[in-house]
Amino acid sequence: MRNIENIARLYSELQQKICQILEITDGRGVFGKKAWRKEIGGGVACVMENGAIIEKGAVNFSFVKGKFTDKMEGLLNEKAGEYSATGISSILHPFNPWVPIIHMNVRYFALDNGISWFGGGIDLTPHIVDTAEAASFHQSLKKICDGFNPRFYPDFKKRADDYYFLPHRNETRGIGGIFFDRLKPDGQNNFETLFGFTVALARAYPEIYSQFMKKNSSKPFSEQEKKWQNLRRGRYVEFNLIHDRGTKFGLESNGNTESIFVSLPPNATWEYNFQPAPGGFGEDTIRLLKKNIDWVRFHKRAKTLY
Amino acid sequence: MRNIENIARLYSELQQKICQILEITDGRGVFGKKAWRKEIGGGVACVMENGAIIEKGAVNFSFVKGKFTDKMEGLLNEKAGEYSATGISSILHPFNPWVPIIHMNVRYFALDNGISWFGGGIDLTPHIVDTAEAASFHQSLKKICDGFNPRFYPDFKKRADDYYFLPHRNETRGIGGIFFDRLKPDGQNNFETLFGFTVALARAYPEIYSQFMKKNSSKPFSEQEKKWQNLRRGRYVEFNLIHDRGTKFGLESNGNTESIFVSLPPNATWEYNFQPAPGGFGEDTIRLLKKNIDWVRFHKRAKTLY
Repeated sequence: MRNIENIARLYSELQQKICQILEITDGRGVFGKKAWRKEIGGGVACVMENGAIIEKGAVNFSFVKGKFTDKMEGLLNEKAGEYSATGISSILHPFNPWVPIIHMNVRYFALDNGISWFGGGIDLTPHIVDTAEAASFHQSLKKICDGFNPRFYPDFKKRADDYYFLPHRNETRGIGGIFFDRLKPDGQNNFETLFGFTVALARAYPEIYSQFMKKNSSKPFSEQEKKWQNLRRGRYVEFNLIHDRGTKFGLESNGNTESIFVSLPPNATWEYNFQPAPGGFGEDTIRLLKKNIDWVRFHKRAKTLY
Repeated sequence: MRNIENIARLYSELQQKICQILEITDGRGVFGKKAWRKEIGGGVACVMENGAIIEKGAVNFSFVKGKFTDKMEGLLNEKAGEYSATGISSILHPFNPWVPIIHMNVRYFALDNGISWFGGGIDLTPHIVDTAEAASFHQSLKKICDGFNPRFYPDFKKRADDYYFLPHRNETRGIGGIFFDRLKPDGQNNFETLFGFTVALARAYPEIYSQFMKKNSSKPFSEQEKKWQNLRRGRYVEFNLIHDRGTKFGLESNGNTESIFVSLPPNATWEYNFQPAPGGFGEDTIRLLKKNIDWVRFHKRAKTLY
């Protein structure tokens, strides 16, 4: 199973499973499949546009090999001649501002010097933060993590807070989740545990998001919430183009531009010096876009979503 | 005059002059002035939103001093303890897709090791390229450049082609213009020539743009051109957040985020794998977003705009 071809095969099957579940919940949208192949390898971009609930969403799979460039050495702090990598990456942008944006990624990365690791995570970016939903989301991730290693949730929750952060805005991207990288087999976790953990996340992902779709996609909203959603989408663009390592790596590896940028929202706005109305949902949301909020304990008895 | 305080004073006056001319041409919009001050220094952001012609535009002035960080050493390839910098930076986003986006920047940068230089340029990003207008624009820049040094236009035109380029799209940002950096006094150009050149550019800038505003702001457009404009604005966001050195330097120097990001368009869209209609203005535009087009000779007798 440690063969990257086998991992890629299972990730590719999981991609299809994720699309099926999301299509059923959406009820109208269909993921169009587009295979691509370039010198570095290939992949399949599954993209839904204008579903009933999902305005723009992608579930991408790729399996690539290539020269490990100087810039990659800098980004990853490793030395090697060639790398190979496979993974699933997904971002979903809903129409309704009350439904959050979600992101999931699992990946396996192998260098020709024998070093390899898993990375990934799931994180949530509500346009408007609902603390009970945030607590349920984190409780659900904790439950999955705890099935593999009790250190995973606290460690990876902290890493998500640190990673999904916009220093120039002094804001987290959303309410975080879990993020891990360079997770190598060691005395604590064997290869099967780590691989199994990434599979569990990919399986839980569409189930968790389906709960948010069902709960909030019919909630009424006004122009005010819609405008706020577009401004928050602007922040999402800022994070993805300035900070996101997956985007940087994708562009540096001469990957498929349209597949990389399908993570961008269908639209976004920027208004100079916008200040949300005092005491409103915008101000409340900004106050909750902070690191180190203990979401699991934020509400007693937060329900898991999965 | 070589004192940076004196240069900053004149740049600050030029900022006001630029705003005045643009307000007169716009006929309705007013630049709101917002002074900011942080540890590194200060500046004045002049921002117009929802003018008659300019949907969102900024003319920023700043004068900052700070520690020359390791990252700046990497970006600029110089070693120093402290830097000081002053400049004007402007980007204008019009409502009408037939009016181009324009960008101008002039700056003076001084290190405490005695090294200092000028940088800047003017470049045009038409949503829909009109070859006669592109030729006139380049002819106008050539005329200004030739008044200082006959090497300026050919050298700086090439640098703009190389700099305003999105490798992941294999497209130039627009039809280019001129771009220069690290322009130091030497046997060819003394300090006064270089400073005078930046002043000439800042003076010409609102006059040149006023010609585009007058000529095209009443031109009718359909939903098709508007959608295309929003997609091109998406490309502008990609360039500014991924490549633009001014944005990188601004964020790294802990500058004023709202002033830096006021360069972003009021809105932008991303559509997966969008293909312009065959034979239409979109396809024509993409074909002209290439390096090394000799715009000055593209049309015989292109009229200068200034």
